[in-house]
Amino acid sequence: MTVGAPTLLSLLEEKPGEFVSGEEISQKLSVSRTAIWKQIRKLEAQGYKIEAVTRMGYRIIERPSRISPVELTFKLSTRTFGRNVRVHEVVSSTQDVLRELAEEGAPEGTLVIAEQQNQGRGRMGRSWVSPAGKGIWMSLLLRPNVPLLQTPQLTLLAAVALNRAIERVTGLDIGIKWPNDLLVDGKKITGILLESAAEDERIRYVVVGMGVSVNLEASDYPEEVAAKAVSLRMACGRMLDRTELIAEILKEFEDLYAVYNASGFETIRLLWEARSINLNKPTVLTTASGRIEGIPRGISEMGALIVEMEGESMQTVYSAEINPWEK
Amino acid sequence: MTVGAPTLLSLLEEKPGEFVSGEEISQKLSVSRTAIWKQIRKLEAQGYKIEAVTRMGYRIIERPSRISPVELTFKLSTRTFGRNVRVHEVVSSTQDVLRELAEEGAPEGTLVIAEQQNQGRGRMGRSWVSPAGKGIWMSLLLRPNVPLLQTPQLTLLAAVALNRAIERVTGLDIGIKWPNDLLVDGKKITGILLESAAEDERIRYVVVGMGVSVNLEASDYPEEVAAKAVSLRMACGRMLDRTELIAEILKEFEDLYAVYNASGFETIRLLWEARSINLNKPTVLTTASGRIEGIPRGISEMGALIVEMEGESMQTVYSAEINPWEK
Repeated sequence: MTVGAPTLLSLLEEKPGEFVSGEEISQKLSVSRTAIWKQIRKLEAQGYKIEAVTRMGYRIIERPSRISPVELTFKLSTRTFGRNVRVHEVVSSTQDVLRELAEEGAPEGTLVIAEQQNQGRGRMGRSWVSPAGKGIWMSLLLRPNVPLLQTPQLTLLAAVALNRAIERVTGLDIGIKWPNDLLVDGKKITGILLESAAEDERIRYVVVGMGVSVNLEASDYPEEVAAKAVSLRMACGRMLDRTELIAEILKEFEDLYAVYNASGFETIRLLWEARSINLNKPTVLTTASGRIEGIPRGISEMGALIVEMEGESMQTVYSAEINPWEK
Repeated sequence: MTVGAPTLLSLLEEKPGEFVSGEEISQKLSVSRTAIWKQIRKLEAQGYKIEAVTRMGYRIIERPSRISPVELTFKLSTRTFGRNVRVHEVVSSTQDVLRELAEEGAPEGTLVIAEQQNQGRGRMGRSWVSPAGKGIWMSLLLRPNVPLLQTPQLTLLAAVALNRAIERVTGLDIGIKWPNDLLVDGKKITGILLESAAEDERIRYVVVGMGVSVNLEASDYPEEVAAKAVSLRMACGRMLDRTELIAEILKEFEDLYAVYNASGFETIRLLWEARSINLNKPTVLTTASGRIEGIPRGISEMGALIVEMEGESMQTVYSAEINPWEK
């Protein structure tokens, strides 16, 4: 049943599973075939999958799933993480939205989720593919009582939390590329970006941005990204319930954060090292001050990467591009 | 000459140097004596100094000075610092105003000045006395290309820049209390607060808040602050030209920042150490993780305070309250 003027969506939804002919749509909406195509594209961008068959017409074969705050609250087993939550349809970036809330005094654990980001950001100012309804694009607010120079530890903590939660839900074997990219068979499935605000050496807050490519398909990736990225759906061959995954991630994150606050970085360090794909392999690091060739041996007490250089001297690296070193 | 309805200010300004009787004011403004007192208080809060003599009335004996962007630009000898400048009459905090501009993409060197702040902030969330027209309350935008964990170096750089500029203008002997309070005879003349925003280990920007108590008088300080703070005017016995002082601070800051960017922290470290009032004296440091008693010996390569503990072991401290240690 449609209310008010019919739309392309209402026509297609009227007879679930059945084709609606282009002619019928043209007449009922009083629009051209070209205009129909444009509207189909719009629905697809919103997460609908529409089949078009010559002489049959169009039908919906997949609907976008929606993250509902009510359902999420029901599935959550956390104390504070995600208890204060906002779900948006489209935002520029969940980071920007949450940063504003943080400045207004939002409590630790506040979560901002978006079905779609039109200016999703990755590390080093790169853009991040975040189409509607297919991924988890969210930001979590932390107000840790640690000095600013310990933020590298939080970066690694976030990687371990996502790694453990996603492995538990999907059964996939997920490696961590330093510092915080999660990879399946060498292809990236998540992006994590920590933005911190500090007053002198005191952290005011940290906004942890998490992008998880959940139900994206190969066609969702731009060509230049497709070689380097994969979705959980593509990797494990089935669609995943995003709300369940969010609940798992928050639970794991909250638990590890509690361990970190209570007894320090050591546990996180060991968990991170156990999942690293970079340790003990010849590696090239491109830092702001130059190129480093060596073998990463572990993570320092402060959260830096310890790299063994030629002659067995050790160097600690906080920020760099990391790649295998092919002699 | 007044335009429109007379105000208390216009009546007082009509005959410069002469008294205007309370009766005359009452009649011309049609207000009570009590109402006149309230308005006098308001003018004083704006930086006017008004003499009240029984049976004579009121007269202005000091007008607030104003920082003019045009005059400042004329006096500046910098390349970028302060070239993009906004002068506000009243703001909550110049930090908040500049942070917004930074998020919108303002260039390095952008400066926000306010004649008055009604929510001026100091370190550790303390409030900061910033009455109208009597001090320098300003924030400077930096976009340094250094990793996040080097921000302590910038904190010390700011202290050295203000120290050198203010010494040159006033001739006062100014010590630095770690990390960045400037003191004259043990009393505080400035407050510096760095707020930084980072993406992982990369600094997005740093907003350097500087509060300099220039022409405040003893009566401007709340009782609990008066014992610990002093203005440049009180310390050197004369009023100072705030615009000239701002120009000197920016010049010194820009020069030191250029040295820092070109050849690293070493010069800043030596300049800071030479002006420190804490080095080589028994000291108590109250950190987030506990109390440290020892003797500060210098600044580390990364900008931390190196404290010699009993038994000659060394500890580095990034953030703490510092006080003399009286056995």
